[in-house]
Amino acid sequence: MKGGRILLGHGSGGTLGHELVRDLFLRHFQDPALARLEDASDISLADEAGRLEGQVVLTTDSYVVKPRFFPGGDIGRLAVCGTVNDLAMRGARPLYLTAGFILEEGLPLADLERAVRSMAEAAREAGVRIVAGDTKVVEHGGADGLFINTAGVGLVPPGVHIHGAGARPGDAILVSGAVGDHGLTIMTHREGLAFESTLESDCAPLNGLVEALLAAVGPALHTLRDPTRGGLATTLCEIAEQSGVGMVVDELSIPIHDAVRAASELLGLDPLYVANEGKLVAIVAGPYAEAALAAMRAHPLGREAALIGRVVSEHAGTVALRTLLGTHRILDMLAGEQLPRIC
Amino acid sequence: MKGGRILLGHGSGGTLGHELVRDLFLRHFQDPALARLEDASDISLADEAGRLEGQVVLTTDSYVVKPRFFPGGDIGRLAVCGTVNDLAMRGARPLYLTAGFILEEGLPLADLERAVRSMAEAAREAGVRIVAGDTKVVEHGGADGLFINTAGVGLVPPGVHIHGAGARPGDAILVSGAVGDHGLTIMTHREGLAFESTLESDCAPLNGLVEALLAAVGPALHTLRDPTRGGLATTLCEIAEQSGVGMVVDELSIPIHDAVRAASELLGLDPLYVANEGKLVAIVAGPYAEAALAAMRAHPLGREAALIGRVVSEHAGTVALRTLLGTHRILDMLAGEQLPRIC
Repeated sequence: MKGGRILLGHGSGGTLGHELVRDLFLRHFQDPALARLEDASDISLADEAGRLEGQVVLTTDSYVVKPRFFPGGDIGRLAVCGTVNDLAMRGARPLYLTAGFILEEGLPLADLERAVRSMAEAAREAGVRIVAGDTKVVEHGGADGLFINTAGVGLVPPGVHIHGAGARPGDAILVSGAVGDHGLTIMTHREGLAFESTLESDCAPLNGLVEALLAAVGPALHTLRDPTRGGLATTLCEIAEQSGVGMVVDELSIPIHDAVRAASELLGLDPLYVANEGKLVAIVAGPYAEAALAAMRAHPLGREAALIGRVVSEHAGTVALRTLLGTHRILDMLAGEQLPRIC
Repeated sequence: MKGGRILLGHGSGGTLGHELVRDLFLRHFQDPALARLEDASDISLADEAGRLEGQVVLTTDSYVVKPRFFPGGDIGRLAVCGTVNDLAMRGARPLYLTAGFILEEGLPLADLERAVRSMAEAAREAGVRIVAGDTKVVEHGGADGLFINTAGVGLVPPGVHIHGAGARPGDAILVSGAVGDHGLTIMTHREGLAFESTLESDCAPLNGLVEALLAAVGPALHTLRDPTRGGLATTLCEIAEQSGVGMVVDELSIPIHDAVRAASELLGLDPLYVANEGKLVAIVAGPYAEAALAAMRAHPLGREAALIGRVVSEHAGTVALRTLLGTHRILDMLAGEQLPRIC
């Protein structure tokens, strides 16, 4: 397939499409359910006795990130990690993914193959199977190269109840590491700025980190969310609103890499509103904050985890940030568009 | 939302995006699981005793049809029916859908609302719930208006085993109605041809028809497939290949509407290779052919059902068409691209 490009015929349902499926998708994804080429693929959720233990969850996300390849990841890795993380944020074990490709006529086959290989690698890393897929081709100019949709099915173990409305006054607010890396990497890479070499996307599957958290604090883990579009600030606002609680966050305690801080200042962006793709916010019952923090720091993806604030009963629905200067300001949701095509 | 257009900010994860979700998606889809706005939505598959009876199946498809609105349907109706039908072709009851939207900056909100309303109506018609969603916005020129991905989860009842490798020599080949309507409707509508008024897409959810077939002939139903891209001919070739059998099909017995025949001749297309979106091919044990035919004809979506051929043990992997002239020709899979952006 070297040197080739996507033709309209690759989306026709005929022989060219069959070749693409066999020589590219099946070869990299290596899954028996996918290889059967049925209209819908069998998936197993029950145990051998036919009992379904736990709660099945379902999610979807489309990925349109530009550029397609960037330091720390690419659109393929993102398409697996993003959907795996949406499942993990409910405490679920990610099990099965679907993959829908929208390709622009003329897309280099090498680009598609690179993204597909990344998907396969990320899926192995997360322990999830890609079992169903679809490819559409639009004429040149009808799409920007390559869009990927993934949907995911996961299983929440019995006894785990993690949701956006779970935060309670007295809970601790933790973040699993430094914020802003993904968004600033995309933005500086796109702008061709010189300091981009020190920035790298944090794109990673977080299900292992969530398992470590659950093992450490169990039902004390009330809410999880990955601060993607809209960043940490918007995510905290969403949780405060869904849970009907207030939050007080200490700006000084939020980990931010120096390169992100520098790039943010140069571009006039607030890193609290910039997307992350390998970080989570955990709301944990107060007495379990230290145990949760220790569990995260012991995991490769949580080494820079930090306690950044507390859930309070006052000013429900509102997040107050204690600034570096000791004053308080209200964190609102992202209002307009800060960074398009970030994920 | 009247008169408005999609802005980049609608995809930012901030307040504009939240408004779009609340005022458009939640309003039309009306689903409690969706309304909870979790990263992943709870779905129920087991009975109240926690037993999972049957086989869970998973599928996905993206929809890029152009024009977005056409006689007999639109991209929204197609996005629900297409994925519901992929589930139904395994004999599954369609239960849950996800919906991923990729929107071009500048898309009229009225167009989006019309498509979303169609999705909601088609979902009610099929008895399926839309429980998870995602919206991305790409800048003007980065996509052609509106693309929709849906993924679907269904449950195959115990004892039902329908798959592409199920056809056996002696089986009857049935089609549920006239072929070519959808593809020719799209093509003539796109070309602005005068006779388009008599053509209408057959876009419809086929799960009810499949239930009727299962009730009538049960395990005698070996294979189901909806002849979408590549049309009836490509679908038959796929089944012949997957099942390792030959097929003999009688051209005269294949139902084709006069308007489709006329449009095909004018455009130089073969209706056997044109996409359908509300038809199925059923491969049924020979002795049950009449019962299957009667069950289909008693259903509103199967009134024009016909027996079109037989599965044979000779020429495995090959479909022979007995032509109007009495000669035989080999039906191959669609080779290049006949009709782009058909679904």
